Amino acid sequence: MNGGVKEFHLVAEEFEHEFAPGSKAICWGYNGSTPGPTIEATEGDRIRIFVTNRLREATTIHWHGLILPSGMDGVGGLNQPQIKPGETFAYEFTLKQHGTHMYHPHADEMVQMAMGMMGLLIIHPRRGEAVPIDRDYAFLLHNFALHPGTRRPDPAVMQDFDLWTFNSKVFPAIEPIVARTGERVRIRVGNLSMWNHPIHLHGVQFHITGGDGGRLPRSQWRTEVTEIVGVGQMRDIEFTAVPGDWAFHCHMSHHTMGPMGHDIPNTIGVDQRGVEAKIRQMLPGYMAMGEDGMGEHQDHTDGGMPGPPNTLAMMAGKGPFGNIEMGGMLTVVKVRDDLAPGDFSDPGWYRNPAGSVARRVSNDPAFGNPPRRPR
Amino acid sequence: MNGGVKEFHLVAEEFEHEFAPGSKAICWGYNGSTPGPTIEATEGDRIRIFVTNRLREATTIHWHGLILPSGMDGVGGLNQPQIKPGETFAYEFTLKQHGTHMYHPHADEMVQMAMGMMGLLIIHPRRGEAVPIDRDYAFLLHNFALHPGTRRPDPAVMQDFDLWTFNSKVFPAIEPIVARTGERVRIRVGNLSMWNHPIHLHGVQFHITGGDGGRLPRSQWRTEVTEIVGVGQMRDIEFTAVPGDWAFHCHMSHHTMGPMGHDIPNTIGVDQRGVEAKIRQMLPGYMAMGEDGMGEHQDHTDGGMPGPPNTLAMMAGKGPFGNIEMGGMLTVVKVRDDLAPGDFSDPGWYRNPAGSVARRVSNDPAFGNPPRRPR
Amino acid sequence: MNGGVKEFHLVAEEFEHEFAPGSKAICWGYNGSTPGPTIEATEGDRIRIFVTNRLREATTIHWHGLILPSGMDGVGGLNQPQIKPGETFAYEFTLKQHGTHMYHPHADEMVQMAMGMMGLLIIHPRRGEAVPIDRDYAFLLHNFALHPGTRRPDPAVMQDFDLWTFNSKVFPAIEPIVARTGERVRIRVGNLSMWNHPIHLHGVQFHITGGDGGRLPRSQWRTEVTEIVGVGQMRDIEFTAVPGDWAFHCHMSHHTMGPMGHDIPNTIGVDQRGVEAKIRQMLPGYMAMGEDGMGEHQDHTDGGMPGPPNTLAMMAGKGPFGNIEMGGMLTVVKVRDDLAPGDFSDPGWYRNPAGSVARRVSNDPAFGNPPRRPR
Repeated sequence: MNGGVKEFHLVAEEFEHEFAPGSKAICWGYNGSTPGPTIEATEGDRIRIFVTNRLREATTIHWHGLILPSGMDGVGGLNQPQIKPGETFAYEFTLKQHGTHMYHPHADEMVQMAMGMMGLLIIHPRRGEAVPIDRDYAFLLHNFALHPGTRRPDPAVMQDFDLWTFNSKVFPAIEPIVARTGERVRIRVGNLSMWNHPIHLHGVQFHITGGDGGRLPRSQWRTEVTEIVGVGQMRDIEFTAVPGDWAFHCHMSHHTMGPMGHDIPNTIGVDQRGVEAKIRQMLPGYMAMGEDGMGEHQDHTDGGMPGPPNTLAMMAGKGPFGNIEMGGMLTVVKVRDDLAPGDFSDPGWYRNPAGSVARRVSNDPAFGNPPRRPR
Repeated sequence: MNGGVKEFHLVAEEFEHEFAPGSKAICWGYNGSTPGPTIEATEGDRIRIFVTNRLREATTIHWHGLILPSGMDGVGGLNQPQIKPGETFAYEFTLKQHGTHMYHPHADEMVQMAMGMMGLLIIHPRRGEAVPIDRDYAFLLHNFALHPGTRRPDPAVMQDFDLWTFNSKVFPAIEPIVARTGERVRIRVGNLSMWNHPIHLHGVQFHITGGDGGRLPRSQWRTEVTEIVGVGQMRDIEFTAVPGDWAFHCHMSHHTMGPMGHDIPNTIGVDQRGVEAKIRQMLPGYMAMGEDGMGEHQDHTDGGMPGPPNTLAMMAGKGPFGNIEMGGMLTVVKVRDDLAPGDFSDPGWYRNPAGSVARRVSNDPAFGNPPRRPR
Repeated sequence: MNGGVKEFHLVAEEFEHEFAPGSKAICWGYNGSTPGPTIEATEGDRIRIFVTNRLREATTIHWHGLILPSGMDGVGGLNQPQIKPGETFAYEFTLKQHGTHMYHPHADEMVQMAMGMMGLLIIHPRRGEAVPIDRDYAFLLHNFALHPGTRRPDPAVMQDFDLWTFNSKVFPAIEPIVARTGERVRIRVGNLSMWNHPIHLHGVQFHITGGDGGRLPRSQWRTEVTEIVGVGQMRDIEFTAVPGDWAFHCHMSHHTMGPMGHDIPNTIGVDQRGVEAKIRQMLPGYMAMGEDGMGEHQDHTDGGMPGPPNTLAMMAGKGPFGNIEMGGMLTVVKVRDDLAPGDFSDPGWYRNPAGSVARRVSNDPAFGNPPRRPR
């Protein structure tokens, strides 16, 4: 606080970022991280934000969804001069609203966002929430074109991204969402990627209660299980926690995968034994894969099958019952009966009540190995 | 029924599937079909579903949108062990809701869905519909990368699909939606493809009345003519039938086309006469196409111009007035005054009342052949 | 007017269209323009539209979202015969609704829309607007694959478009939206492109009040700052004008860029000095770019760095504070206190009240030039 004004300082800069163990990149962000620090304030606050540019090109910050003077809106060239390398600018305005917002550059924005520049800006209501919230989570969706074997995201990619991220992390490196049974949980989801992502939660019907356009009146709360969060949108998802381990993910099946080639030959149903033998002469240990599906990839990767340097496996993550066979935009909502209020630590895996897990009732391995069809 | 529990049996397996006459593929699905059988039950029912895996890799089933115990939710590794080839698992739970849902694998799901594994799960309300429904239809949207000349879908494709399907069929092989004038029709549309499809209906303004997030209260029913059905969403479209033949389709113009190359040279406005003569020396009967548009393709295809084996034409379908020049995600809502209740058979083409069809008022062929522009 | 019927005449034809100075193409549209003329009428009117085909292939027109006889719905082959080159057809029907609609071909539609054929059809309410509108704007979103150096859009492109347009224009050639402080503004946005575009407005929270599905009851008006306008949808955006210059754009960062290669090597962080020297031996004046970001591209382009013929720069537009560094789907909402009612002329740039612009508070150029990271 400085004379009644809440002050913040964002430094635009380059740094090394880890998407998950085994995958690092030179990214751009604020104060050494992508997304940058979450700015939290209360409706009615006056805030001043210093922005220092430690990049090697000009930048600005746009305060997405905020009601503010035109000169504070952050579009470089239109609302203000560009912030040149080495300069520090001050933005100052009063918060006339509450809701879930974000900040990002509006200068060379395609490149700067592709490199990771973005952050959350959350304004709490002055008079409290209409329905009290016990747990408040927030994610920014993004995508990075970190091609296998490289170490800088490629800003020229328009659609074919390698890493689809929650808060610039990929499964299983994304933290779980932890709650106690019966608590009211809010998950704020914003999107600065290049895709309108359908975000799906298992186990409950949730309400969409607002977003960057403001809070919705109660009569407009919709129940959904999958909500499209468009690029440049934020959505507030709220629900009452139900015990269990519940997947929370983008429903595009390719967005819950790690980096993979999209122009590779289709190996489903292809007898690769002859090829395998030939390649082994040059590359001992090579394993032909994919004839029966790709699920085996996770075992092979875990078993040491080498991939390109600095590149994640297509599938990862172990659950209490084995391989989870996913990557990218996925985390787990972990709801437990016995959690202390305010305890956000990972409670481990859910212990299912007796008789409540899908169970094997018969097994005939031969039956699952039907003769292969002609290719 | 078995001791008060409704039992179903789904067998995950490989089989040959026909998208339309002239295009078959080796697909995966349930009980020999894609989508698998539609599971119908009533709110409050207890159901038990046996799932047998006749694939050559592990699978599971997730019951999309259902409120159920964590151990029945079907994410392999997280909620249950993978169902290995040859194994049969039992899922069992009580239906605590009603609405339009679906089932699909949550194990190697990118591949397994790309190969066709999915199905509808419809739960009828115990106390009847708020507004009685006379005709109830359901479609699952999907996409298959069945590259020209191949016979297995390619699961590595992320966006550039060849076949955009309703219930794994393409126009004109998709069944029409038949109704009697004045009947209340529901079309349930779910999406497990890799695109958020804007689904458009001609001739009426429809209501969106619910989906996989549950039924909406009447005050939230929206009138639309095009609704984006996101991936992992289902939407209930309801309307009162109006007589006529009305197109029902995805509004992405490329998604109402059959397989086509996207990296081919642009022939619009290109004089290909010299090229044609040269190619004919090697390939008698070759016709250069596309100088004036692509509408002529349907005539040429019908006229026997050969394409790659096992590959549909880009355009197909004949209506009462000639070529319809589309393919993919399109069918026709056929509403007639004189249909018997419960008659779902194709009533043929609509007989327009006199004077109600767009009519030719003049014809000057020379006027429609302006000199070609310089290229 | 002709005997109580409002008559219109649309001529489908080919012509030269300018996307912005420096980029022209041979397009198709109506009456020499893309989009074609906006048809305006009032609820209850009877209208007759003559459609003359001056293309070299058949066409039709579909009246998107209208309640009309099946034979007037415009799907070639299904609802009517194709309109052959040289023919003129008459469509005639009574407007039973009001709202924001559009017209486009339903014959070889992928090609014909890709070439620019589309138009707006706006039906005003007979009894006036629920909330009076002071300024009424309308845009049709589209995309053109005008590959660098070519002069006809490529209809075979499915996703990788070069020009993302508002009313077939790109920034800075798109006209501004002008309003007086406090006026009620409506922006009608329709989409016939190949992407569901998230349309974002700065400076206000707007209401979505209706679209091609009809006007929404007041209880369903949602406040948003970004609205996904799906392909084949129209959305009415309404707000009370607030003084300033406010960006209005698609929020996909690549859609506010001019044509750019997507398969080019990533130059971020790459020391190109050696390469530059070598290329200069062959191409004097060549400048290696992109090591520190792409913002410098606009200066280089303005400075005369040549691109391919008939190709726009990736970034363009000058504001009162310098380069705006964007292109494509972007325009500016210009709201002024002192505008005469009905004055739609460009008022120039906003004059910010003293102290209301983000300001430089310090400058240490060395601080903004940190040592480059190892590559």
